[in-house]
Amino acid sequence: MPSLLVIHGPNLNLLGAREPSIYGTTTLDDINAELSVRASAVGFAIESVQSNLEGVIINHIQQAAISHDALLINPAGYSHTSVAIRDALDAIGIPAVEVHLSNIAARESFRHVSLTGAVCIGTVSGFGARSYYLALDAAVAHVKGLQSK
Amino acid sequence: MPSLLVIHGPNLNLLGAREPSIYGTTTLDDINAELSVRASAVGFAIESVQSNLEGVIINHIQQAAISHDALLINPAGYSHTSVAIRDALDAIGIPAVEVHLSNIAARESFRHVSLTGAVCIGTVSGFGARSYYLALDAAVAHVKGLQSK
Amino acid sequence: MPSLLVIHGPNLNLLGAREPSIYGTTTLDDINAELSVRASAVGFAIESVQSNLEGVIINHIQQAAISHDALLINPAGYSHTSVAIRDALDAIGIPAVEVHLSNIAARESFRHVSLTGAVCIGTVSGFGARSYYLALDAAVAHVKGLQSK
Amino acid sequence: MPSLLVIHGPNLNLLGAREPSIYGTTTLDDINAELSVRASAVGFAIESVQSNLEGVIINHIQQAAISHDALLINPAGYSHTSVAIRDALDAIGIPAVEVHLSNIAARESFRHVSLTGAVCIGTVSGFGARSYYLALDAAVAHVKGLQSK
Amino acid sequence: MPSLLVIHGPNLNLLGAREPSIYGTTTLDDINAELSVRASAVGFAIESVQSNLEGVIINHIQQAAISHDALLINPAGYSHTSVAIRDALDAIGIPAVEVHLSNIAARESFRHVSLTGAVCIGTVSGFGARSYYLALDAAVAHVKGLQSK
Amino acid sequence: MPSLLVIHGPNLNLLGAREPSIYGTTTLDDINAELSVRASAVGFAIESVQSNLEGVIINHIQQAAISHDALLINPAGYSHTSVAIRDALDAIGIPAVEVHLSNIAARESFRHVSLTGAVCIGTVSGFGARSYYLALDAAVAHVKGLQSK
Amino acid sequence: MPSLLVIHGPNLNLLGAREPSIYGTTTLDDINAELSVRASAVGFAIESVQSNLEGVIINHIQQAAISHDALLINPAGYSHTSVAIRDALDAIGIPAVEVHLSNIAARESFRHVSLTGAVCIGTVSGFGARSYYLALDAAVAHVKGLQSK
Amino acid sequence: MPSLLVIHGPNLNLLGAREPSIYGTTTLDDINAELSVRASAVGFAIESVQSNLEGVIINHIQQAAISHDALLINPAGYSHTSVAIRDALDAIGIPAVEVHLSNIAARESFRHVSLTGAVCIGTVSGFGARSYYLALDAAVAHVKGLQSK
Amino acid sequence: MPSLLVIHGPNLNLLGAREPSIYGTTTLDDINAELSVRASAVGFAIESVQSNLEGVIINHIQQAAISHDALLINPAGYSHTSVAIRDALDAIGIPAVEVHLSNIAARESFRHVSLTGAVCIGTVSGFGARSYYLALDAAVAHVKGLQSK
Amino acid sequence: MPSLLVIHGPNLNLLGAREPSIYGTTTLDDINAELSVRASAVGFAIESVQSNLEGVIINHIQQAAISHDALLINPAGYSHTSVAIRDALDAIGIPAVEVHLSNIAARESFRHVSLTGAVCIGTVSGFGARSYYLALDAAVAHVKGLQSK
Amino acid sequence: MPSLLVIHGPNLNLLGAREPSIYGTTTLDDINAELSVRASAVGFAIESVQSNLEGVIINHIQQAAISHDALLINPAGYSHTSVAIRDALDAIGIPAVEVHLSNIAARESFRHVSLTGAVCIGTVSGFGARSYYLALDAAVAHVKGLQSK
Amino acid sequence: MPSLLVIHGPNLNLLGAREPSIYGTTTLDDINAELSVRASAVGFAIESVQSNLEGVIINHIQQAAISHDALLINPAGYSHTSVAIRDALDAIGIPAVEVHLSNIAARESFRHVSLTGAVCIGTVSGFGARSYYLALDAAVAHVKGLQSK
Repeated sequence: MPSLLVIHGPNLNLLGAREPSIYGTTTLDDINAELSVRASAVGFAIESVQSNLEGVIINHIQQAAISHDALLINPAGYSHTSVAIRDALDAIGIPAVEVHLSNIAARESFRHVSLTGAVCIGTVSGFGARSYYLALDAAVAHVKGLQSK
Repeated sequence: MPSLLVIHGPNLNLLGAREPSIYGTTTLDDINAELSVRASAVGFAIESVQSNLEGVIINHIQQAAISHDALLINPAGYSHTSVAIRDALDAIGIPAVEVHLSNIAARESFRHVSLTGAVCIGTVSGFGARSYYLALDAAVAHVKGLQSK
Repeated sequence: MPSLLVIHGPNLNLLGAREPSIYGTTTLDDINAELSVRASAVGFAIESVQSNLEGVIINHIQQAAISHDALLINPAGYSHTSVAIRDALDAIGIPAVEVHLSNIAARESFRHVSLTGAVCIGTVSGFGARSYYLALDAAVAHVKGLQSK
Repeated sequence: MPSLLVIHGPNLNLLGAREPSIYGTTTLDDINAELSVRASAVGFAIESVQSNLEGVIINHIQQAAISHDALLINPAGYSHTSVAIRDALDAIGIPAVEVHLSNIAARESFRHVSLTGAVCIGTVSGFGARSYYLALDAAVAHVKGLQSK
Repeated sequence: MPSLLVIHGPNLNLLGAREPSIYGTTTLDDINAELSVRASAVGFAIESVQSNLEGVIINHIQQAAISHDALLINPAGYSHTSVAIRDALDAIGIPAVEVHLSNIAARESFRHVSLTGAVCIGTVSGFGARSYYLALDAAVAHVKGLQSK
Repeated sequence: MPSLLVIHGPNLNLLGAREPSIYGTTTLDDINAELSVRASAVGFAIESVQSNLEGVIINHIQQAAISHDALLINPAGYSHTSVAIRDALDAIGIPAVEVHLSNIAARESFRHVSLTGAVCIGTVSGFGARSYYLALDAAVAHVKGLQSK
Repeated sequence: MPSLLVIHGPNLNLLGAREPSIYGTTTLDDINAELSVRASAVGFAIESVQSNLEGVIINHIQQAAISHDALLINPAGYSHTSVAIRDALDAIGIPAVEVHLSNIAARESFRHVSLTGAVCIGTVSGFGARSYYLALDAAVAHVKGLQSK
Repeated sequence: MPSLLVIHGPNLNLLGAREPSIYGTTTLDDINAELSVRASAVGFAIESVQSNLEGVIINHIQQAAISHDALLINPAGYSHTSVAIRDALDAIGIPAVEVHLSNIAARESFRHVSLTGAVCIGTVSGFGARSYYLALDAAVAHVKGLQSK
Repeated sequence: MPSLLVIHGPNLNLLGAREPSIYGTTTLDDINAELSVRASAVGFAIESVQSNLEGVIINHIQQAAISHDALLINPAGYSHTSVAIRDALDAIGIPAVEVHLSNIAARESFRHVSLTGAVCIGTVSGFGARSYYLALDAAVAHVKGLQSK
Repeated sequence: MPSLLVIHGPNLNLLGAREPSIYGTTTLDDINAELSVRASAVGFAIESVQSNLEGVIINHIQQAAISHDALLINPAGYSHTSVAIRDALDAIGIPAVEVHLSNIAARESFRHVSLTGAVCIGTVSGFGARSYYLALDAAVAHVKGLQSK
Repeated sequence: MPSLLVIHGPNLNLLGAREPSIYGTTTLDDINAELSVRASAVGFAIESVQSNLEGVIINHIQQAAISHDALLINPAGYSHTSVAIRDALDAIGIPAVEVHLSNIAARESFRHVSLTGAVCIGTVSGFGARSYYLALDAAVAHVKGLQSK
Repeated sequence: MPSLLVIHGPNLNLLGAREPSIYGTTTLDDINAELSVRASAVGFAIESVQSNLEGVIINHIQQAAISHDALLINPAGYSHTSVAIRDALDAIGIPAVEVHLSNIAARESFRHVSLTGAVCIGTVSGFGARSYYLALDAAVAHVKGLQSK
């Protein structure tokens, strides 16, 4: 059974906890649960981790290469500053899909360019929690495509 | 019945016709057909247009605001240079989702920033033809969400 | 009888149609009508065209050189990106006045510098529809000045 | 009776005195006289001051807010360097119109961006002395519009 | 019989018509006629088109790939701004030679870098009408070389 | 009783241990002790933590939002590179005051701009250990002001 | 008895007079009065001046070196543009503390770097009127520290 | 008898008064006296002024055009920031020579480019008080050369 | 017996494990073993650590100052982004030598400048595992040189 | 009989000697021989020199002005860095044509702008050895044109 | 017997001759002698040249490709400006190792990026004369590695 | 008897030979003769050299340190590009004065900053041949000042 790892980057543990009148009440647990349901429906196992530490995220990326078939990753603030996460994504042999809740093209200019996105197969950005579900579809399709070759 | 307009920008009419050994044999007609099937399945009408002319694309965007509920747009080369398409997307009252076949973050640096993406609700980039299908899902969900409010 | 051509650039056909609570209800037709009245009052013929297509705007500029004495032009989004419109304005032998409805100095930084304004005799920016009427005054005075020499 | 203050910035006192074969023989007094005639004709009082000192210009701007309804200002060389004049224009509650004799878009690149123009309602640039008269029209219309609301 | 397409970009239709005391009296028709004579002499068919519209130029580039063996293109003002024309030139399977009448390295800095030239086989710039004739020689030699391999 | 958290960033644990002839002999413990005395005197509880890890600092920021009323933070080297710490400070609902021992405006140019300072209420920079005590005063006043409203 | 000079830069005379609903009703006189009380309490004389003129501020800085022991200075808009004020602060033998009412790191990018702050001993920014009182504490401590050595 | 005006810019009144162990004990009066002796020896009248105010310096430049034959000017900190002084120097009909005591090419990068030097006939930089005497020689020679033509 | 600490930065634990056909089969353990042999041969103790966490690397740097005589450090991706590691290297009293397996000057432009290299005594870059052995020689020689003085 | 000088810049002596499988086996002698044949055929004398020394190239340029009617120059790597060669080309009274074997617009960004090309009459770039022959045609035509006037 | 060429760039002939109290008394002859001893010990011939002329250095690089197996090169000031030396290093078929006596990452910013280093196999920078000896080891190992394959 | 070396850089041998109607008829020999007369009058020997070769200029600079007391140098085009000449000037123990015939601040922007000027004691720019004579005065005074200490 193919398997995915979802890596949530810094501050995403706050999701749903801060300012619910603005951001809604969806939490990271809600997203992870929905991802599990959707992954099961297409025959994939899925695991989710969150960390605020750049190096711990690198550890997760490296371990994913051993035990998973693809990555979903939302590097959040590290997207724009971490050469080291980029190197980790570039080194492993499995594909990654980058996810952003908000539309980074519409925010401050220092968020317009993603260092990490350049070594992923693609990016889904701007659709809130749905960004994760679309990225799941993309990753599943990619893994199936690779396996069918 | 809600309706979507898909706008394919410059050079996308060549899809599937050039270098099939590299890009595969999927044509724009194939993508449009698949989009129709998927849109029907969720109760949406869908129409597709392609143009190599910046101003014709602006015309399509403006007309979409009258007859459609949302836009899928792949501005291709105009993504990085057209303030006028950005202004058109910003002026109309309906949401747009930006689509890119290739991962623009991994190409030449003049493709890293999208002027038009900043006024869309989000972007799907890098998954080939699948980028369109994921964008369709995002647009449908967005329209349904707006309608249910 | 001296004659002016007014060229309205991309998206200006939407004027008065979009978000009237914000932009008011003045349409491009309203502006053109007012310009006609004002031009007649000072003994000038006036013609108005609008296009969303960069190349069509270039065609209008070239034709103006044959049949008119001066240009009013609002290049809108093309002001900041079109070397080709700049070249057209630079090539013809008649003067042009650049018009902007909004104050471009107060908007996004990519709107601060006008490529096209550099080859006009001057610019009126920020006074809404009145920008056109002030530009008309400037063009009329310029033509009369040139003719009296 | 509504009242306007005209602030002429550095070096404008030289107008008409330097190189008349190039710049013509119009002096600042000529412009002020013409402005008075035109203001009277539309029922406005008008006062004109000139200073080469950045801080004195700031003083004039602040005092205008007490005794006048709007400002015409030609900050000349300070347009491109003075955060302090910008702050003064931004702080007062009355509208300002920026004026330039020459077309700043056609001069050296350090003159292309105006710091002060960003906090005015609009700019008239490139029409010689006529830039002032067009700016007067804009200011008068703006004040009347505000009062009629 | 091998065939070439010559694409003249924006404002080149004005050639010979504007300021003949400076630019001479050579028109685009003159250049096209001379190109025909020279092409015939080396056994090539040649066709010439001109457009001020970026998208129409893209259409011509795409069609050239079907009916011609090589392109001569003078993108004029679009050389420096059009990612979309660059993409078109890059997508087709036939070689292109870029032509400039004037020496772009000696003009304004925004003309120093050509986006489109990077996907042509080479560039001839600065020799007036002769730039086209030299480019014809280069294209003919290139096509013959390719055919002889 | 209101409560503050003091977060000392990377390398600040070395304070007083390195080059005492230059930096003096004040240690981080000395500063924390002095902060406790001063906080008690104005009726505030205070807690201090130090970490060299970017992600651990983010954890502390998030936890402060639950158990404290305001933050003092010296992000040290992370001030200039960490979008993720900025996001954490921006997400929580309590105010933060940024502290720097040295005057960052007088050091290398890559230290002149603080990403994190932009989401704090203010900054105290350049006064050595005293920077912390002044920041304490600012935070206490801010909390009291907010509570009294 | 040691003595301080407080220099308030351009537009600060407007404090409390403009938009009290936003900025509050604290005036510069209020701040000066509070500074006097606080200075007296720690055995310091204090004098305050305000000017909108860059050169007058330079004069004050130079004179402070003769009759005072330290400076508090809020250069406001001149912070970001005045090499001359920087040179004055650098030339005199007494320490200066830079003060900003607002958090300059959170405003427009042209306010992020302070030319003048680089030659002060430190900066207090973002705490409104309290920025002055914290800066007073810093200056007093600095002077006492210098005197006790 | 030909006449020169020497304009000393901001902070130069401090010369010889600050840190004599580093800068020597030469004062501005000493320099002015030496300039007088040297000017007399070659048959020139000379007058010297100093101001810390940008606008007063502009006033001096304008008045020099009426009563003097050439200018020596040390704009000090204003060299790098004042478009207004540049405009004044550019407007008057008499030549100016720029003087710097220190070698500006060897100082901070924001001092490397002189806005004002571009409109002077030349610059002498780096020789301390001697920079003035060399500039005097240059100005005298220039005036004599102009008069002998 | 003098002692060295070797710090391997992010992703270096993957060495020899990823894509052996490209990178060879040398692992980090192999390098550490070879370093031990070489260090012993010249009378030095050596210890090696690896971490993917920026802050843990800072901890190692700080502890090295207590128990070792010099550092070898390969900061990998952190070389280009970490002001905090730079500060740690700058704060400790022992020398460091920077090591890179690949030639960073020949890679992407964001790898050309090393923030951390600026506070090391020197750098060895581009020789694969041998970069470490050359850096060991450099560090040993430096320590011996310091000890013999 | 009119005469041309061909100047081959640094490393061009290696032509045909390095990597013949990539660059072909054409040597500089081959090119010079072909140039001689072609020049003779149109009644021109031609001389060729090569140097790796920037200053020797300047010497050749200066001497060409005495003994030749035009220059062909391939400055190779010096095209992008040599203000001194540019000055030499600008100083002499005879025309120069710049030649590049490869298409510099398609190489590294530091090769996109040619300092020297700006003072030549035009450039031929990208056609291998044929670039020289096309440049010869351009130079001959230019010289004949000049002589016929 | 394999052979190396050492190329010392501009100003390195001054080594040991200038300011011995700072730079030590090691001369280039000393370094060359030590290199000879070390090369002999590992069975390599070695030759050393020095030149201040960019083109002579290019000549040496080209000749090395004929008579040597590898290069050690210290391009000194040319490292940062010479596209031509870069092209020479890139054209020859033998490997080069770049050497710097000082740590270029710690000097002026215009020395941070090496154009020439990008086409060498690696760089040793910052260890004084020892940089050469480490580079020798690297080159010897590289040549042996190549030969043993 | 103290001695000076004058180094004239690239293209200065053309002086007086090119376009005498613009540049006058003064040759380098004229300048050298005048410098000799003036040097003798103040008891200095003087020698002049000219070269178009960067490395030969470096050789002259190095030799000057042995046989002369100061340098006058006009690096012409190398002023803006040569790190190697800068290093030579910085290495020798004698002072240099930089000379420019034209006012480099008034020319193309790539001539505004002088790399070499930063390591001279000062610069004289813009006075034609007189720049050399003023620089001679500066150098003589500097040498005498150094000797009298």
